[in-house]
Amino acid sequence: MAKISIDDMAGFCKKKGFIFPNSEIYGGMAGFFDYGHLGSELKKNIKDSWWKYHVQDREDVIGIDGTIITHPKVWVASGHVESFLDIMLECTKCGEKIRADTFIEEKLKIAADGIKADAINSLIDDNNLVCPKCSSDFKKAEDFNLMFEIQVGPKKDSESMAYLRPETAQLMFTDFKLVYDSARAKLPFGIAQMGRAFRNEISPRNFLFRCREFEQMEIEYFIHPDKVQECPYIKEMLDYEFLVYSASMQDNKKPAGMMKLKDALKNKIIKTKWHAYWLSVEHKWFCDLGVNPKNLRIRQHLKEEKSHYALDTWDLEYNFPFGWKELQGMANRTDFDLRQHIKHSKKDLSIFDQETNKKVIPYVVAEPSLGVDRSFLVFMFDAYTTRKDEKGNEVVVLKLNPKIAPVKVGVFPLVNKLEEKAREVFDLLKKEFTCIFDRSGSIGRRYARADESGIPYCVTIDFDTLNDKQVTIRDRDTAKQKRVKIEELIGELKKLI
Amino acid sequence: MAKISIDDMAGFCKKKGFIFPNSEIYGGMAGFFDYGHLGSELKKNIKDSWWKYHVQDREDVIGIDGTIITHPKVWVASGHVESFLDIMLECTKCGEKIRADTFIEEKLKIAADGIKADAINSLIDDNNLVCPKCSSDFKKAEDFNLMFEIQVGPKKDSESMAYLRPETAQLMFTDFKLVYDSARAKLPFGIAQMGRAFRNEISPRNFLFRCREFEQMEIEYFIHPDKVQECPYIKEMLDYEFLVYSASMQDNKKPAGMMKLKDALKNKIIKTKWHAYWLSVEHKWFCDLGVNPKNLRIRQHLKEEKSHYALDTWDLEYNFPFGWKELQGMANRTDFDLRQHIKHSKKDLSIFDQETNKKVIPYVVAEPSLGVDRSFLVFMFDAYTTRKDEKGNEVVVLKLNPKIAPVKVGVFPLVNKLEEKAREVFDLLKKEFTCIFDRSGSIGRRYARADESGIPYCVTIDFDTLNDKQVTIRDRDTAKQKRVKIEELIGELKKLI
Repeated sequence: MAKISIDDMAGFCKKKGFIFPNSEIYGGMAGFFDYGHLGSELKKNIKDSWWKYHVQDREDVIGIDGTIITHPKVWVASGHVESFLDIMLECTKCGEKIRADTFIEEKLKIAADGIKADAINSLIDDNNLVCPKCSSDFKKAEDFNLMFEIQVGPKKDSESMAYLRPETAQLMFTDFKLVYDSARAKLPFGIAQMGRAFRNEISPRNFLFRCREFEQMEIEYFIHPDKVQECPYIKEMLDYEFLVYSASMQDNKKPAGMMKLKDALKNKIIKTKWHAYWLSVEHKWFCDLGVNPKNLRIRQHLKEEKSHYALDTWDLEYNFPFGWKELQGMANRTDFDLRQHIKHSKKDLSIFDQETNKKVIPYVVAEPSLGVDRSFLVFMFDAYTTRKDEKGNEVVVLKLNPKIAPVKVGVFPLVNKLEEKAREVFDLLKKEFTCIFDRSGSIGRRYARADESGIPYCVTIDFDTLNDKQVTIRDRDTAKQKRVKIEELIGELKKLI
Repeated sequence: MAKISIDDMAGFCKKKGFIFPNSEIYGGMAGFFDYGHLGSELKKNIKDSWWKYHVQDREDVIGIDGTIITHPKVWVASGHVESFLDIMLECTKCGEKIRADTFIEEKLKIAADGIKADAINSLIDDNNLVCPKCSSDFKKAEDFNLMFEIQVGPKKDSESMAYLRPETAQLMFTDFKLVYDSARAKLPFGIAQMGRAFRNEISPRNFLFRCREFEQMEIEYFIHPDKVQECPYIKEMLDYEFLVYSASMQDNKKPAGMMKLKDALKNKIIKTKWHAYWLSVEHKWFCDLGVNPKNLRIRQHLKEEKSHYALDTWDLEYNFPFGWKELQGMANRTDFDLRQHIKHSKKDLSIFDQETNKKVIPYVVAEPSLGVDRSFLVFMFDAYTTRKDEKGNEVVVLKLNPKIAPVKVGVFPLVNKLEEKAREVFDLLKKEFTCIFDRSGSIGRRYARADESGIPYCVTIDFDTLNDKQVTIRDRDTAKQKRVKIEELIGELKKLI
């Protein structure tokens, strides 16, 4: 479990070059963050790993990469124009505007996610809640659409109005037929996309957790509507085990429990094989990249939480310092989205199923949808540890999995005299791994800096190297050292990384 | 040279799943395109290759990944609010709005890039130019700022107004000090960024060439202001040769000529070593990925073309079917941007130079700045070839360099009976390469489809495979075939790719 608060994590990320507040020299912008030299590499590794696992390594998932500014009708059809709302409270006196549900949750310690404006107004009245800034009364709560509007082209009128996408997902539906035809796809198959999305949050909070600009990695997985229980891949995952927190456990105040996938299916806790399959696949992605399974759970949405389109929704959650929070929602969206786009575009988006000789509108049985920035936070919190150095000071060791670590190897000459030899080793390694060369400060200082940066292995060149052609590999997590021949160094490191 | 028009290329890209018009089912949006299953992989390979070549393989360039929505003061300081303009013509009768410079260029066959509104009005009057749609007169030409405005947060007022970044570049300046400190950088060094940028073009045109939403790969390269001629890397590139088109060649109507970098420097055609170095490095990136050097040239900006901040600017250009066009501009920006941000933010962005013991404001000596989408077009046009098939029909062979080809290997069973064996080979290869499995249609059809998709190597499993454990590798570019043992297949393909 992470031993650091979210604010301290933000400070650590800034100091080490993982994350900076955007436009800081101009006072910053709430809800916008830039990734620094280590952060941009870690983020890229997370995205590359997601794409490889979900798209390149699978025959049944294909990728797209669409635009951020999208046609307004897309969001009318999807329901976002009507329903993608938060409820806003505005102070009658100072004009402060805050998000109602999180305000209510903080003040009254009750769950308020998805609560309507009327209910908010009653709670405000019943509990005499006032503006946190100036203690005056609020106006009546009102709906606030979270989509950013934009005018496209030189004519400023209602016809030129478009939106920044609030999710990457809808493009998989609007491009569905084009993708299906050009990729010669066959059911079941998924369409994946990574990219930025934007939500005009009333009060962005918790560092990277709730930003106005963020990045998503999403799949819409399409199946034949009659084949919800026919998942050809389920066998691979039946013995997979994870922490499960069903709606009935929550209703009956029972704790979440470790459960095998096959038992969750047998006991009808997870209703469809496809849904169960994708939940386990998504859980496994995090664990394969080093996240402690004890910090992850799958939680079923309660009746009142469910989205307007979904038959059944589960969240993959992580145990953040500020509580268990959603990483991704996975909904069985049925044919809701495709039908909406058929209705609004008047285009035929059904496909011809060769096996049954019928035209069908596929079901989206699962929508693995993950925030890149939230994943980034998960990997950072899960990797963050401290140890005492020789002087008794607490120092940070960032135990990022070598697969996603921004820098794989640090190369250090023990003293500056050895720089030439160390450069030779560096030049050898940099063809294979992302490396840094560091000659500044004592070797202990350099190890400590490498530990803070999450560099899994350091290679040190000392005076013996000149004679025995061996170097020392130091392991970040154990601080153990090992002598290796230079000629065997690449092979040795490849085994480790 | 490409044998296809830009419109036919757009059609080919749509059919094969490289590029779709965005929101096509809703009538589309001019200047917005989505990348399909092959396009998204090709684009990812281009970006990954750029990042590896420019950031990961270099010690002196570090990456960032910042936000798209940015603080308005950033763009005041950069000069974009005042100067990032196109001139717009509006019809008095039908209200049609068009971009003046390209309209003038088309009608009068003169260069009009950067021309001012007054000059446009004179040209319109002198040549009796009228609306291309309804032949009525234009209103007076007026400036149109190309930045998209956006309201951030729940308060809609002038203070909440921000911009979508029109380039990724400014974030390297606003984050300069944070990056410098956290990465412990030393001059000379560069800050690199890839990502979306947005320009509200009056008339988007030429498919991917001029879009409203596009992607950039940019570096700001900082040096000590006194060391413009001290480039430690220049030696590596002195014998590099490229097609050079200087301002004086253009002024004197002389043709561009092949020239070695050292000669361009000796003859003071390129003024600074740093600038020369980066021009050659950028040129080489394209050529390393298979682009024919005859289709690339570096062209110096004429006096009247130069940006407000630049001492000397060169464009890297490609010979598109619609003429030589800019791929990237490379300007010596001096300390213009950092000084602007110092002035507007009132923050000290100077750094302490250890060598000279002085505080300095670094110079940006070169700004390698490249459009991902334009690069995508370059690789497509350069790779696009045709050949006659057995029946005499013209078929497309997309000769993409294996390093960036979206799919590296196609695996085909000669007949369906051999599918099991072919699957074994596929499972073996897919751990190492992006592969597709195709069992549909004659083997000739499958080869043709692979050629159109730019798949460099196809592996076919035939009846002999069952006995001799060998398969056939077919080379896309020569259509030559070769038998290889399955156990040697991965090694053989690795050599080729």
